[in-house]
Amino acid sequence: MQEIRLASRPTGWPTADNFELAETTTPEPGDGQVLVRNLFMSVDPYMRGRMNDTKSYVAPFAVGEPLDGGAIGEVVASNSPDVPVGAHVTHALGWREFSVLDAARVRVVDPAAAPSLSAYLGVLGMTGLTAYVGLLDIARFREGDTVFVSGAAGAVGSIVGQIARLKGAKRVIGSAGSAEKARRLVEEFGFDAAFNYKDAPVREQLSAAAPDGIDVYFDNVGGEHLEAAIASLTKFGRIALCGAIAQYNDTAPPAAPRNMASAIGKELNLRGFIVGNHFHRMPDFLAEAAPWLRDGSLAARETVVDGLANAPEAFLGLLRGENIGKMIVRL
Amino acid sequence: MQEIRLASRPTGWPTADNFELAETTTPEPGDGQVLVRNLFMSVDPYMRGRMNDTKSYVAPFAVGEPLDGGAIGEVVASNSPDVPVGAHVTHALGWREFSVLDAARVRVVDPAAAPSLSAYLGVLGMTGLTAYVGLLDIARFREGDTVFVSGAAGAVGSIVGQIARLKGAKRVIGSAGSAEKARRLVEEFGFDAAFNYKDAPVREQLSAAAPDGIDVYFDNVGGEHLEAAIASLTKFGRIALCGAIAQYNDTAPPAAPRNMASAIGKELNLRGFIVGNHFHRMPDFLAEAAPWLRDGSLAARETVVDGLANAPEAFLGLLRGENIGKMIVRL
Repeated sequence: MQEIRLASRPTGWPTADNFELAETTTPEPGDGQVLVRNLFMSVDPYMRGRMNDTKSYVAPFAVGEPLDGGAIGEVVASNSPDVPVGAHVTHALGWREFSVLDAARVRVVDPAAAPSLSAYLGVLGMTGLTAYVGLLDIARFREGDTVFVSGAAGAVGSIVGQIARLKGAKRVIGSAGSAEKARRLVEEFGFDAAFNYKDAPVREQLSAAAPDGIDVYFDNVGGEHLEAAIASLTKFGRIALCGAIAQYNDTAPPAAPRNMASAIGKELNLRGFIVGNHFHRMPDFLAEAAPWLRDGSLAARETVVDGLANAPEAFLGLLRGENIGKMIVRL
Repeated sequence: MQEIRLASRPTGWPTADNFELAETTTPEPGDGQVLVRNLFMSVDPYMRGRMNDTKSYVAPFAVGEPLDGGAIGEVVASNSPDVPVGAHVTHALGWREFSVLDAARVRVVDPAAAPSLSAYLGVLGMTGLTAYVGLLDIARFREGDTVFVSGAAGAVGSIVGQIARLKGAKRVIGSAGSAEKARRLVEEFGFDAAFNYKDAPVREQLSAAAPDGIDVYFDNVGGEHLEAAIASLTKFGRIALCGAIAQYNDTAPPAAPRNMASAIGKELNLRGFIVGNHFHRMPDFLAEAAPWLRDGSLAARETVVDGLANAPEAFLGLLRGENIGKMIVRL
């Protein structure tokens, strides 16, 4: 079987040289374990942090070892009565053709309940839950709020904007990295306004799109976007700090935000979060999102790259912002 | 009577020239109004912001008009049955010898219930309530937390540290602007550790004082202190953003904090607040603080400047950090 290993740690932007496609023996499942043939895997911005040798909320990848991350596949051998051969399961050992896991480490899903198997890695998985928890629990979205989302054409951002709309936002504004993405935010995802952050300073464009200010900011980007949002937030505004993709490849720390002092008078609330501590909300999320997905009120776009060998390129493309919606690798 | 007017708006650090001591006619109280002879007035860091012509949570001072702010005095004429002559009242029209106010705009206090009348401007007034609300409600302090306070020798900071100690903090750390202040934080206010932030980078000194990290940061300072605190905060750490005195006189925005992205993985919560929206907590605060003050477990220091004419100098000294505890002007 094939797997992708971390060949070396990047400094700044990663390149194809940091990854290695390796041949290895397909492992045998032990007692209570299953062997999964992977069908789809996820590449996510947070994986960039794991390529560094720094302590964070997840352990760094080890040089010379395979990467890991969200994947979905079919059980092809099982030593567990709970997870039979033929079951479809999601798990956390992607970046390889076959994975061996304890049965307790996989989650059986129903292929018939989703528009595609890969949805369990995106809109019906961690991605969707991240959007849901961040908007509702962390930023405490309320009906009538004006919401700004950065990285809005990405996997999480595109769902945040749509949930805000479905839950009665007054106005939903998104930023993205191209005119094409901004256009699709409005036309396909139902944002009220969107802009290409490369066109002009975020502060100016946000202010023009939300002349009365914003109540909630969902931050996938950090840096200049965060500073602009702090400037636009109204009294008691709320920020969910979810990602900072603008600076994941920076070798020097960013200068922004320089206006934190205005969070005092406006009594802003900024909260960082990672979805791992919010799994208990998955049933609530699925109960709302599955019907939205079925009746078409929630659009879930994917950018699909074929072949495990192309997974590094899919990941690099994600960091460059080449995806619309969830970036998926089909094995 | 005399009053202090705003002569001109400062750029950067204010100077004595921005203030004017003026003679004016002592006003007569109208229907339902009282005339108060002021005995003490408060100077506070937030007043610096009101010297600028910028919209904030309180209106700017007007050039050529008297300043205002917290004061306490004795009623010398009254057209209100609710507030008799001889009553002692706190109100918001300081910076002048006599104030006329609607009776509804003053609060009658009991001189016998406080160690000094001026305490109603400090430890038993807005200052104490700011410390209490910020620590308990905004930063959600819990017994066993390690707490870091900046501007810790100031009016609010010195009370924050003491409340944290009285409520069972594991460790209380303060920063201040001189070795003398740092010494007094430990010796007079019961902090476990304190440092002079001018001695070495805050990040290094905080890390040395709190090798296991901090759980709560009460920010009176902003800038480098805020960045250092974000670096030291543990998982689910909380920040009360109360002031940013380090940058009130800056003409360019500060560069820090450059590490906001680490608020994501640590799931930090940063909340700005102003005490004006938390007056409902005054009874709870007084019920706890008055006994502490009586039995000596809460030390309330004041730096007292004599004479209305010296109020501008008191205010400038406050901005330069020349006070220990509450800066008070005795009229």
